[in-house]
Amino acid sequence: MFKYKLIIEYDGTKFVGWQRQDNGSSIQQSLEEAIQKLSNEKVSVFGAGRTDSGVHAKGQVAHFEISNDLAKDNIRDGINQHLRPLPIAILNVEKVESDFHARFSAKQRIYEYSIINRRPPLTFQRQLTWVIYKKLDVEKMKEAATFFKGKHDFNAFRSIDCQSSTSIKTVDHCSVVNNQESITIQVAAKSFLHSQVRIMVGTLVNVGEGKIQPFNLKKIIEMKDRDIAGVTAPAHGLYLKEIIY
Amino acid sequence: MFKYKLIIEYDGTKFVGWQRQDNGSSIQQSLEEAIQKLSNEKVSVFGAGRTDSGVHAKGQVAHFEISNDLAKDNIRDGINQHLRPLPIAILNVEKVESDFHARFSAKQRIYEYSIINRRPPLTFQRQLTWVIYKKLDVEKMKEAATFFKGKHDFNAFRSIDCQSSTSIKTVDHCSVVNNQESITIQVAAKSFLHSQVRIMVGTLVNVGEGKIQPFNLKKIIEMKDRDIAGVTAPAHGLYLKEIIY
Repeated sequence: MFKYKLIIEYDGTKFVGWQRQDNGSSIQQSLEEAIQKLSNEKVSVFGAGRTDSGVHAKGQVAHFEISNDLAKDNIRDGINQHLRPLPIAILNVEKVESDFHARFSAKQRIYEYSIINRRPPLTFQRQLTWVIYKKLDVEKMKEAATFFKGKHDFNAFRSIDCQSSTSIKTVDHCSVVNNQESITIQVAAKSFLHSQVRIMVGTLVNVGEGKIQPFNLKKIIEMKDRDIAGVTAPAHGLYLKEIIY
Repeated sequence: MFKYKLIIEYDGTKFVGWQRQDNGSSIQQSLEEAIQKLSNEKVSVFGAGRTDSGVHAKGQVAHFEISNDLAKDNIRDGINQHLRPLPIAILNVEKVESDFHARFSAKQRIYEYSIINRRPPLTFQRQLTWVIYKKLDVEKMKEAATFFKGKHDFNAFRSIDCQSSTSIKTVDHCSVVNNQESITIQVAAKSFLHSQVRIMVGTLVNVGEGKIQPFNLKKIIEMKDRDIAGVTAPAHGLYLKEIIY
């Protein structure tokens, strides 16, 4: 068998998420069907991160195995051909060793959250960014973001559906960058709890709105109570940006 | 009467263009209807540039007159409210003197054309950029762009529908900037012929594809023959960026 690593971009708006589900089409299923059309064999696709419904990706990673040794550019173009007209694209294909696993070999996952902060309604990118009409204090958001860095119990920052046995995670990086009306929040960690990035972002937005003081972030983390942390930011502003191996 | 200047952003995908037409909804008509709902009086809206169907704007300018002296922020929010859910937004409102005219007072119009040059199909922004799969030689495009600058007879660069009595225009600026897979072409002039920017962009793309040599641009301009210039770039990559007064 030959194993291939894919780098995948998708607009998650109309999908139930990465993972196969009964109630609609998933990215995983769409990829498996496209690869089966290309290879004429049944394949399973394993992704690095299980993005939720509405979440996008600019650099999701997945792997699969097939019995034919195909040229990587032919795999990329062939899968892309069979994916049309879905908004999913294979950006890159690489042949990998048999011990590579998209999920378990990942050293770091980088997410990016896109906010547009302005008074007028959005015209472009309506399903691709979170528009916030009230002026945010970005300097306070930057200050608050520093408290997330490091190893913490993120119990206050996971959804009630989260099935992880531990809520202790290490955030390698959390930054807030603004450019005119755009605010981008980048978060990196080896792994995340369910909805962790979206609750972190929602909490930072509550800081920007003046509802939470930056220095209270430390206390909110320590109290480990979901009700004390901020809102869950909507899925459609979130992008799985890159997976580091 | 009180005269107001609007700065307007819109996603032109589903409109017949700026100007009122019988075969679909226009930006102009949508704005007039929204302002009439706000002011309870019949108004005419005059735009700086008549963008074609599918062309977008980030900084279209228009003016209108009403008999009430309203606060500019209330006008912005009120029009935006009545425009919902259309992808048109008023970014800014200013009160202007009675001799201001959005079209005739304009000193310069700046257009931007967005190209994505990559092999995989697009996932995001499908109606907002021109995707070109074949690798373009951007350095050659940059070289060719320099020939457009200055006062020339642009007869080769206007559509057969163009009704302008003269085809002599002065291009103040024409640049090609690339950043990873994105290529942005910016063109500025006091005024343009019909489809001039789209034919200039299409010709630069033909240069990038190797079909036209950069140094031949001078000859193509001098021959004044539409059949010698390049293709007309699709409307959906074009943005009316800014109007200078």
